[in-house]
Amino acid sequence: MLATMLYAPGDVRVEERDEPVIQKPTDAIIRLTATCICGSDLWPFRGLNDVSSPMAMGHEYCGVVVAVGSDVKTVKPGQFVVGSFVLSDNTCPHCRHGFQSSCEQREFMTGGQAEYARVPLADGTLIATDTMPDDDLIPSLLAASDVLGTGWYAADAARVQSGSTVVVVGDGAVGLMGVLAAKQLGAHRIIAMSRHKSRQDLALDYGATDIIAERGDAGVARVKELTQRIGADAVLECVGTQESMQTAINCARPGSMIGYVGVPHGVQFDGQSLFFSQTGMMGGPAPVRRFLPYLLDLILTRQINPGRVFDLELPLADAAEGYRAMDERRAIKTLLRP
Amino acid sequence: MLATMLYAPGDVRVEERDEPVIQKPTDAIIRLTATCICGSDLWPFRGLNDVSSPMAMGHEYCGVVVAVGSDVKTVKPGQFVVGSFVLSDNTCPHCRHGFQSSCEQREFMTGGQAEYARVPLADGTLIATDTMPDDDLIPSLLAASDVLGTGWYAADAARVQSGSTVVVVGDGAVGLMGVLAAKQLGAHRIIAMSRHKSRQDLALDYGATDIIAERGDAGVARVKELTQRIGADAVLECVGTQESMQTAINCARPGSMIGYVGVPHGVQFDGQSLFFSQTGMMGGPAPVRRFLPYLLDLILTRQINPGRVFDLELPLADAAEGYRAMDERRAIKTLLRP
Repeated sequence: MLATMLYAPGDVRVEERDEPVIQKPTDAIIRLTATCICGSDLWPFRGLNDVSSPMAMGHEYCGVVVAVGSDVKTVKPGQFVVGSFVLSDNTCPHCRHGFQSSCEQREFMTGGQAEYARVPLADGTLIATDTMPDDDLIPSLLAASDVLGTGWYAADAARVQSGSTVVVVGDGAVGLMGVLAAKQLGAHRIIAMSRHKSRQDLALDYGATDIIAERGDAGVARVKELTQRIGADAVLECVGTQESMQTAINCARPGSMIGYVGVPHGVQFDGQSLFFSQTGMMGGPAPVRRFLPYLLDLILTRQINPGRVFDLELPLADAAEGYRAMDERRAIKTLLRP
Repeated sequence: MLATMLYAPGDVRVEERDEPVIQKPTDAIIRLTATCICGSDLWPFRGLNDVSSPMAMGHEYCGVVVAVGSDVKTVKPGQFVVGSFVLSDNTCPHCRHGFQSSCEQREFMTGGQAEYARVPLADGTLIATDTMPDDDLIPSLLAASDVLGTGWYAADAARVQSGSTVVVVGDGAVGLMGVLAAKQLGAHRIIAMSRHKSRQDLALDYGATDIIAERGDAGVARVKELTQRIGADAVLECVGTQESMQTAINCARPGSMIGYVGVPHGVQFDGQSLFFSQTGMMGGPAPVRRFLPYLLDLILTRQINPGRVFDLELPLADAAEGYRAMDERRAIKTLLRP
């Protein structure tokens, strides 16, 4: 089968690999209907994470089950499934508290940018749809696997509620999904920080009420202007750099929460500054599995259309071009069809 | 009048000073019934904060109003009052959100360890009792001014709720008040980290179900043991050092909140570690004013007795000995009678 491997920064190859097989009784094997490239895949692509040996890329996935291990009870061959990018048993105490992304058996999905993939902990990770979904819903269902679930978690962690004024820092795919989530959760005002026309337009379509093109202190000043100097009730930090995190903290009113979902790279918080800012923080890898049943329902009933975040679709064989397009910001997010 | 001044680390003097006068129409002058020494007063006493010129010490206070400015409407001479250590207008947007400790007009109280004190922003800061309280209630009413309100905020920020398993890091007066607060908020299990017999005993009296004498990694291991390796639902960080903060993070289960109220001294958080710990953080100076009406009611109806945290009572003139006793851990907290 074809699979996407990262050999070194900038060196993505789609090559022939053995098809995955059941290794544990809790595994499932799926034939990918669609997969995609994540903003976090760009960290090693850009050399910001170590790449010591060829990495099997891809953790966002949906497709049809072709085989299951002997212990798997909730999905069966022939079913269409979507799963979280974090593999979880969904039964341990952390899972029961709704933090499947910190499951005692947690693993991170790999090898999803391929024709077939092995999904460990299938019962705790995958959700099957009742019927085979319409093809036009595939991008949105795929989005639920990570990018939508992550944007949703940012809004959940930031405790967005009806009437909230929300700032979304970052106009990547996750930030745009954060806008969508904030809208669904009843935010009254959604301020999206974005400098790119196509992303601004999509943010507005997803429910943003205001766009701020400025960054850093100038961006914070604009947020303060728009909020009568109060700051936001909730901030979604969807980047993960020191600058974006500081912007998030400075935009937030005292007592508000920052949901941060961009994996922090080189970020340090000074305890005393954070203390006196009196902003709350909750982050981490998104417990997508908690939200997945609800999000799939919203998608299948066509109440949300997160799939619009994919503005480039390529055959799996052209994955390398998909990486380059995202790296060069020619694409927000690339969908790959095996 | 007598007032307590810190001239340099270790150099506390109670000396004659001019009585305070109304400076702004929103001021009140009170005659102190009781005041006390705060754990945070020990930072400059120990030379860990700068002392550039003699500092008028004391920010915890209760007493009788002797004069009010022309704009003051809610308190009047002759009334007994308790106020927050943070002065607030209680009308700005941050106050209305319940974060009076980030009031747009915020000031921190000073000069409370004296016979008389000026309280700016009296309407937004002070609460008057209906009648002159019984003398035995004075220590508890005084505690509401900061230490009780701060422990309460730690529990509130950590989102302690009915049935929670709570860890309290720090057995100072604030930590002990955190235990009391967690009990009042319905925590099912309250694990107090304390190495000192007298503090352990008081923690148990206030509702602690378990005492852990170990610190650092050994303490964390004990918490994990007591919680079936899950960790706590809520952690109250009541110290403010790098070690205590790391202990708090390591005790907390993924998805839990840490309420941190010890002013961080030299504390740095690594963004990526915090992200993957998936623990939430909310801290800052306590918005005591939010809780004050409720706490005074609990005290006046004798449902709680936070005043037991004072295990040393001295005349104001002996304040220096009160500082030494706390510095040397001979006393948990010193009450001063002017």
